[in-house]
Order: sequence, then C-alpha cells, then structure tokens
Amino acid sequence: MTQKILVLPGDGIGPEITAQASRILAACQARGLDVEVEEALLGGAAYDVHGEPLPAETLEKARAARAILLGAVGGPKWDRIEDLSKRPEKGLLGVRKHLGLFGNLRPAITYPQLAAASSLKPELVAGLDIMIVRELTGGIYFGQPRGIEERGGERVGFNTYVYSESEIERIGRVAFEMAQKRGKKLCSVDKANVLEVTILWREVMERLAPEYPDVELSHMYVDNAAMQLVRAPKQFDVMVTGNMFGDILSDAAAMLTGSIGMLPSASLNESGQGMYEPCHGSAPDIAGQGIANPLATILSVAMMLRYSLDEPALAARIEAAVGKVLDDGLRTADIAAEGTRTVSTAEMGDAVLEAF
Amino acid sequence: MTQKILVLPGDGIGPEITAQASRILAACQARGLDVEVEEALLGGAAYDVHGEPLPAETLEKARAARAILLGAVGGPKWDRIEDLSKRPEKGLLGVRKHLGLFGNLRPAITYPQLAAASSLKPELVAGLDIMIVRELTGGIYFGQPRGIEERGGERVGFNTYVYSESEIERIGRVAFEMAQKRGKKLCSVDKANVLEVTILWREVMERLAPEYPDVELSHMYVDNAAMQLVRAPKQFDVMVTGNMFGDILSDAAAMLTGSIGMLPSASLNESGQGMYEPCHGSAPDIAGQGIANPLATILSVAMMLRYSLDEPALAARIEAAVGKVLDDGLRTADIAAEGTRTVSTAEMGDAVLEAF
Ligand SMILES: CC(C)[C@H](C(=O)O)[C@@H](O)C(=O)O
Ligand SMILES: CC(C)[C@H](C(=O)O)[C@@H](O)C(=O)O
Repeated sequence: MTQKILVLPGDGIGPEITAQASRILAACQARGLDVEVEEALLGGAAYDVHGEPLPAETLEKARAARAILLGAVGGPKWDRIEDLSKRPEKGLLGVRKHLGLFGNLRPAITYPQLAAASSLKPELVAGLDIMIVRELTGGIYFGQPRGIEERGGERVGFNTYVYSESEIERIGRVAFEMAQKRGKKLCSVDKANVLEVTILWREVMERLAPEYPDVELSHMYVDNAAMQLVRAPKQFDVMVTGNMFGDILSDAAAMLTGSIGMLPSASLNESGQGMYEPCHGSAPDIAGQGIANPLATILSVAMMLRYSLDEPALAARIEAAVGKVLDDGLRTADIAAEGTRTVSTAEMGDAVLEAF
Repeated sequence: MTQKILVLPGDGIGPEITAQASRILAACQARGLDVEVEEALLGGAAYDVHGEPLPAETLEKARAARAILLGAVGGPKWDRIEDLSKRPEKGLLGVRKHLGLFGNLRPAITYPQLAAASSLKPELVAGLDIMIVRELTGGIYFGQPRGIEERGGERVGFNTYVYSESEIERIGRVAFEMAQKRGKKLCSVDKANVLEVTILWREVMERLAPEYPDVELSHMYVDNAAMQLVRAPKQFDVMVTGNMFGDILSDAAAMLTGSIGMLPSASLNESGQGMYEPCHGSAPDIAGQGIANPLATILSVAMMLRYSLDEPALAARIEAAVGKVLDDGLRTADIAAEGTRTVSTAEMGDAVLEAF
C-alpha cells in the first residue's frame, strides 16, 4: 500500500533544506520506496497566506500521512504577532499535539569528521553518542490553566506544569526500550527536590524499572544534568525527561557535539506515525542565501525510513552517503574548516545524491 | 553598630568549607570588621536533630542577621524522606522565601590560573566573566497550586509557573543596574514563544529598558541560551531570568568556566540583607575527607563584605589573597593540575589566611 509523506518546508532556511531532502526522498522512490509525497504550509509561511500557522488543510494532510518531514518554523518577522496562538511555533506545537507525537528522539552524536568543530575539548566529545528522549505533547507546553490576567491590581502570567502517570509511563517505556537497544543505561532527569510533578515522574520511572532488568536506571536533577553534559557528556547513553527540560538539554547536548547542523530528530506517536526534522532552527539570518546545511534534514529522512517506514536498509544507505560526502571533505559554511571544501546547499544535496 | 552574621554549615562538605571561611571572617574581625558571628543548623543536619530542615530557631537567627553564610544542603541520606516539605532543600528554599531574597547573583568567571580546567577550548573561556541574575523567590519553585492528586482514576502531578509584573520588575531592575555597573549588555532569557508567563516577563523587561538607556537589552529563548553558553559564552555580560531557567543556566555557565569550585553567589533582598553560598553543592561523596575546596565559600565572604556589609576594601583583600594562593600553585584536589601542589581543605584555608 502506498504510504503518504507530507513535506512541510516551513520558514527561514526550511524551504532550502527540505528541497534537498526531497531529492533524496525521490531517489528512494526510484529505488522502490512506495510513497506519495505532498507538500503543505506550516508556521509563518502558513500565517502569511491563511492567517493561521496550522491551516485545516495542512492538519488534514498531516493526519493522513504516515510521516512528515519538517524544515523549521519561526523568525523575527512573526515575533511581534500579539496573539500567541497565531505564532509560527504554535503550528508546530499543534501538529505535535493533534497527532499525539509524544515521543521525541533527539540524538546528540559527534560525527568523527566534525569533532574539531565542537567547543569542547576533542577528547570529551570524540565518539559521543547520546539519545535524548523528550516527552513532547504534555508538560508545561500544554498545561492548563495558562494565560495572563489581572490579579490584585497588576497583571500576572501563569502556566501549568502537569503530567499524569500514564503520560509518564508512556514516554518512560519508549526510553527504556531505547536503552535496551543501545548501551542499557537510562538517566531520567527531573527536579524532584523542588517540583511535585517531577516527584511523580521519578516514581513512575522507578516503578517501570523492574520490567527492564537489563537497563540501569539513574536519576539526575536538571541543573546537575546541564552541568554534567558540559563536564563529561560521554557518561550518558539514553536520557529521558519532560517537554521543557528536554527542550533545553537536547539543544545544549546538540551544540556540544559540534555537529548541530547534522542532527536529525523524530517525534513519534504510538502507531509509529512520525514527524522528522532537523535539530537546528530556521536560521532566518542566512535564509535565502543557498548556504544552509541540508544534512540534518537529509538525515531526518533516514530516521523516517527507519522509524516510520520500516526501511532500515535505505536509511543506512543515506547515512553512508552523508558519511562519504564528509569524508570527501565537503562542508557547508557552518561546518567549514581548514582543508575542507565549502559548498552550497544545493551542491551538498548533489553530492549526497551522487554518493547514494 | 555591631551587625550579626549567621553561619549555616549545612550538609556534606558544608561544615568543612564554612569552617575555613569562618577563619577568614575572624581575620576580618581582627582587622576591625564589627560583626558578631553565630551558627545554626539548616537542611539535613537540622532535620536529623529537630525533624525540620528549617527549625524556628534558625529562621529567627536568620531574620536577625545582616548576612548569612551557607555551606550547602542535601545528600542521598535524606533523598528518601517521603514528605517533600521535610527535605533539606526545603530549608534552603524557606530561608530564601522568608527573608525575601529574590535577587540571586551568580557570577560565572574563569580564573586565569584555572582556564585549562574547563571542558571548553581555552580560547572560548579565557577571560570569561558573566553575571547571571536569577529570580529566587517566585516562579515555579513557589507557585500555587502544586501537588500530586487523583484525577480520572490516576495520579497527576502539577506545579504552577507564575510571575506578577511587580516581581518581574523588581528583578529586572537589579539586572539593569548590574549591567550599568558592568559591560552594559543585558540578555533576558525566556520561552516567550510557548509560555504566557514569559511573554509577560519579556514585556516588563521591554518596558523597563528606556529607563536604562545606556544598557543594551536583548532577549533569548532558553533553549538557545543553553546552546549559546556552550558555543560562545563570551557573548554574554549580564543575563536575567526566572528561578527555574536560572537554576539550569547558572549551573551550566558555572561548569563551563572550569572554575566551579571557585564560584560564590549572593541572594539579596531589597534592604541588602543577603545569603552567601558557593555555587557548588554539598558533594556528599567527598564529605568528611578534608579535601573539599573552600575557595568558593571564602569568596562568598568577599561577596558578603561587598554587597551586605559595605566593606569593598576587605572584599578586595580576600579576593587578592585567593588570587595569590592560586598564583603560588596551591590547589585542592578538584582543581589539581600538573605542576601544582595539591593541598587539603585546611591547608588551603591556612594559605589564604596567610596571604590575607
Ligand atoms: C519552536 C519551539 C516551539 C520548539 C520547542 O520549544 O519545542 C523548538 O525549540 C524545539 O525544540 O523543537
Ligand atoms: C538545592 C536546590 C533546591 C537549589 C535550587 O534549585 O535552587 C540549588 O540547586 C541552587 O541552585 O541553589
């Protein structure tokens, strides 16, 4: 049965990088991948046309798709929109929520060819391979009540950080299973010395642990986790945490690999439907110049093949092609270094296609 | 008028490091500082004796003191206390709240003698000098409602992230004034693309800005701030943020200097009453061995002299003494390096006293 793929270019460099990733997707079709590829608007691009960051038509297509490839959303152009519900980011959050994409997988890997690009000392990041499992449809991102209102003669802003046992259990299982397939170490990150919601989080993780006897579970406070990522990132295998802490820690971890232009991510629901996107953002400062790095988006296609389309062989081919291009010394500007050749977004796409 | 100083040794290495800092305080008295020094129990140490992390007697002494010197609280011994309100950390949070110590100043400085100890490349951290201003008595740490309760057949944990305009304004002014005294750059950290409470935060910072025309205000999302700290920390001068984000970012920033054993902090209320403590924690793993680094606590005394006791000259003498000891090559185990001499906690105290 032909499966549907939806491409959401989004804002900033989004259209440029998804264009290259779409060429790889087409090459996969040529090799027998039975998918139908559509496009739709999301984020600022959708707001400009429809006045909505997530138009009904886009949501409908997203629901119908087995997998979504997203570029990135947001930019200064839309930062002044008064109504928060109309901001580009809300389009992204809407897709996550409507499709129930609660399981966010964010690998932080140092590519051997790029180890020197890290701001950390090379010995601390060489061979680094962390998988951060972030809960993506709950926590303070979606908690009610929320808002800004008048209280006692002044305005007060408030949000609610909330998790139920079943939400925690669901993401916990994803993380334990991930740890089983990897180094068998799981570090759950919370702030259980201060926040009740994370006391429950820790309890549920503890309760699940006996079902995964081969996995060594540990707990770490979020402030310490931020420190340990900077101090000695290789101590981690799989980390699991809520939406907000995951947002912060996964970005820090991605940056310390020095390979942030290279890192894909997956957001999955229980049926394996997923959205795939680069870890980096929409980079409005370099949009339209043809110099953005398309590799994280291309590697997001590989993740899609592995997690939603059950095509691990094709995924591995893409990853190998990216490795080859790096070995050949090709680099976009963001990862350029002495002795390498700086290429454009499209040239990088050409090179990966050729190596594929 | 004789002012009161309260020393709270706390848990773990707390008693060892405050013992050395108290010797410096005594040396200041010998040089004419007119203070009376008392001690009291806080945290796990207080729980063990009184069944409370913040006994009434301690709180009373804290209220009466012009300044408090704290070692650190917490440790695995008390992590299993079921009642969150009895945990050591709640003692610390109680002092902050009862005394209204809303302004937390956390310098992240790289000591030139220790630049090599950073996990970052030396050129990225040499000369680093950031001041993180963290709101300390509001936000999600104290927001109501909070708890764990049964809803729809399962337990749900929840906390409330809340700030009023006046709370934001108060900490904003501390940060703007700090920036005026320093590099005149202030970066306010929020998550205004997702959280209403931080939309209000950003608005208030914007509203204050015209009153400080010499300060350049910028805004950054917390995930990006975590990345930028790793990528290029020297871009920052003063950062201001809420309680939770400040907890995470200040620890990350402290760690990336490589000088975490050296970093003091201050928590102030509107009348200049303050609590001073090292940025590092209670380090239960090395407690009682006489090897902990007392310098952050000694430098906390310097901060106390500067911010609560109006004795900048004495503060500068302490800082100079610490500098001299480092120049002489003395190091506790945590900052030991080739070509330096490893000393005990007490020997380090001796050396600073001698250089003072
Ligand atoms: C764009 C923003 C809403 C989003 C988030 O905070 O989740 C982004 O930072 C991410 O991590 O995917
Ligand atoms: C001990 C803990 C409650 C405390 C906090 O989270 O504020 C500590 O991490 C700190 O930063 O002072």
